[in-house]
Amino acid sequence: MKTPTAPSPRLASRIDKLTGSVARDILSRTQDKEIISFAGGLPDASLWRDLKLPEVPPSAFQYGPSEGERSLREILARRSKGLGLPANADTTLITSGSQQGLDLAAKLILEPGTPIILEAPSYLAAIQVFKLFQADLHSLPLDSEGICPRALDRLLNETQAPVIYLNPTFQNPSGTSYSLERRKQIAAVLDKHATLLLEDDPYRDIAYDAPPPPPIASFLQTSPWIYLASVSKTLIPGLRLGSLTCSPELFSPLLKLKQAADLHSNRPAQFIATQMLADPAVNQARIDGLCQHYRQKRDLMQTLLAAHFSGLASWEVPSGGMFFWLRFTQRIDLAQALNDTLSRGVAFMPGAPFFADPEDVGTSMRLNFSLVSPERMEEGIRILAAVVRDLHQTAACAESAS
Amino acid sequence: MKTPTAPSPRLASRIDKLTGSVARDILSRTQDKEIISFAGGLPDASLWRDLKLPEVPPSAFQYGPSEGERSLREILARRSKGLGLPANADTTLITSGSQQGLDLAAKLILEPGTPIILEAPSYLAAIQVFKLFQADLHSLPLDSEGICPRALDRLLNETQAPVIYLNPTFQNPSGTSYSLERRKQIAAVLDKHATLLLEDDPYRDIAYDAPPPPPIASFLQTSPWIYLASVSKTLIPGLRLGSLTCSPELFSPLLKLKQAADLHSNRPAQFIATQMLADPAVNQARIDGLCQHYRQKRDLMQTLLAAHFSGLASWEVPSGGMFFWLRFTQRIDLAQALNDTLSRGVAFMPGAPFFADPEDVGTSMRLNFSLVSPERMEEGIRILAAVVRDLHQTAACAESAS
Repeated sequence: MKTPTAPSPRLASRIDKLTGSVARDILSRTQDKEIISFAGGLPDASLWRDLKLPEVPPSAFQYGPSEGERSLREILARRSKGLGLPANADTTLITSGSQQGLDLAAKLILEPGTPIILEAPSYLAAIQVFKLFQADLHSLPLDSEGICPRALDRLLNETQAPVIYLNPTFQNPSGTSYSLERRKQIAAVLDKHATLLLEDDPYRDIAYDAPPPPPIASFLQTSPWIYLASVSKTLIPGLRLGSLTCSPELFSPLLKLKQAADLHSNRPAQFIATQMLADPAVNQARIDGLCQHYRQKRDLMQTLLAAHFSGLASWEVPSGGMFFWLRFTQRIDLAQALNDTLSRGVAFMPGAPFFADPEDVGTSMRLNFSLVSPERMEEGIRILAAVVRDLHQTAACAESAS
Repeated sequence: MKTPTAPSPRLASRIDKLTGSVARDILSRTQDKEIISFAGGLPDASLWRDLKLPEVPPSAFQYGPSEGERSLREILARRSKGLGLPANADTTLITSGSQQGLDLAAKLILEPGTPIILEAPSYLAAIQVFKLFQADLHSLPLDSEGICPRALDRLLNETQAPVIYLNPTFQNPSGTSYSLERRKQIAAVLDKHATLLLEDDPYRDIAYDAPPPPPIASFLQTSPWIYLASVSKTLIPGLRLGSLTCSPELFSPLLKLKQAADLHSNRPAQFIATQMLADPAVNQARIDGLCQHYRQKRDLMQTLLAAHFSGLASWEVPSGGMFFWLRFTQRIDLAQALNDTLSRGVAFMPGAPFFADPEDVGTSMRLNFSLVSPERMEEGIRILAAVVRDLHQTAACAESAS
């Protein structure tokens, strides 16, 4: 047993980069079911209230291949192909959630000081992984159509970054979906610089208006690419299954990295996913139902935000995904706001953890609309707006006094 | 799509250390059910032929905590405590197999050049992970009671290694189980040097004779420790569930590393494991049955080896685990042997991949006895012995001719 005189263990320097995640703290405080949580990115559990899993046969109990089950790889490769990616089952790897895809890609590409380009804001758990691997993070701001291709070209000239991480479809957290034109322009810039594209695409199927344009990776002519997908958002998140498709030369090292990471992903889960995804028509009907359900929630949140946040913040109505991204018209103390709303039973995610570079941090907030029921959403947004309005007035006061 | 003129992507230097695993190649060649495979470390599928999994409730479908399910953490912590480890649920992390425990521990401790001590031979997938993290691997030979404490003390003085990796109970591949005295002596040496002990203990429950002595970590007074356990060998390998228990100061960074690796492990699997492990008496009866089943296989393999390999190799009868480790009396070409036996429908694992340092490579072979049925085991050992005897004679010939 540890005594007070025990020396501290010598840890790897990357551990200094392990961010004590704000997000995690909030999420652990919101395990409490009474909290109205706009903080996480959780699907609505009512969608699977009556779901019975298919019975898993004993043949799925043995150790399996690191690549994943062939049948599931084929289903997911067909989906990727349908999106215009030059994919097949042989270059499709089953991962333990698309989070594992980030870990494997980071191991493949990053070492201390490797420049990597990402969006500002970007997905917070991706930032966490890239920092852990001690990469040199460079951000490009998002406008309503994506990052700017010319700015990207300049930044690639300047940094010689070998890799860019993008989440161009219903981005987490901003909800931004890149236009078709922008996708093509960005692909051309990446080809010019031979930059590896790590494209994270977990929200594509959750589209409320038109279907989104094809992945940026589908427009690449020569650059290497890794495309991450997930069944967590549209099937069953607790399964922890995702997939990775990549340019052929990257598959072999990624497969070895997968093997070293966890040998292979859970096989009963792969069996369940295969059964549930096997019939494209059944699957599409399920996704259509899910989108209709979430569309109503998005519309409700938009109505509530318009009623309560006008003048306090600006936002775009997301055409897919699970989040609203609010930019406040005035800088407010969001740590204070979070304390206040949590004490009144409401959680949200402050914008800061979504920025790799603290200088980029505006005054922003991510609100998830997929989890909370309509009744509670109304109550939650009212409380949130009251707290923000209070702090907004305090901030305005302080400003006029200074 | 990739054209021939596309530039090669710039990858991290660690990828140079990614071993193209012999083991993996053999295992993928033995997916063919007709092969009699002594190569892998697979449990006997007949053990779960009639097993029905408990029905998983929808409450297990949502995202869950990175730590794992509380109920399962409590069950596994009780087990660790029963082994004398100062463990509790708060310092127990559910992992995606104990392979993931190796990945998390490597991330916590290793950077390029970090010295790490391990056994010769050692677990091949651990060697793979440590090489991937570009550690400086130092090996200590195993005798029948474990590594030598005095040699360990000298090597720690010399290398200042902050960490040692040991698999002291029914080791994979050698089958060695450290004596109680040796465990205590090694713990004292580690305390003296404040070395972190990474103890891998997946085979403990598969004991054929007396129960093994407590983990080495239970004898530490001050040194930090990480203890890895697994349900893959005694429950259902396809679930990919393991656990990690550690000294309290290491838990928080390991939990963050787990979050960055895959958010959390599969929840339906955790529910299933909790149900199956909940009743200690039922679980013990299941393990007793499993040990009796494997003991018969071990005894049969010993009989077959005695009949066919006398004079060709020496070995110890393992008192637990799943492997025989044969040391040949003469150096033979094991790549040739593997080709020959595979062409005759039999696979084994050459010893080389279990050595971190090629200089340590003797002429050895690992034989798994848990998977193959008794009838096929007899046939397989006969073929194996015939091939080895042939090569042995060729080698003796060449030697006398030179």
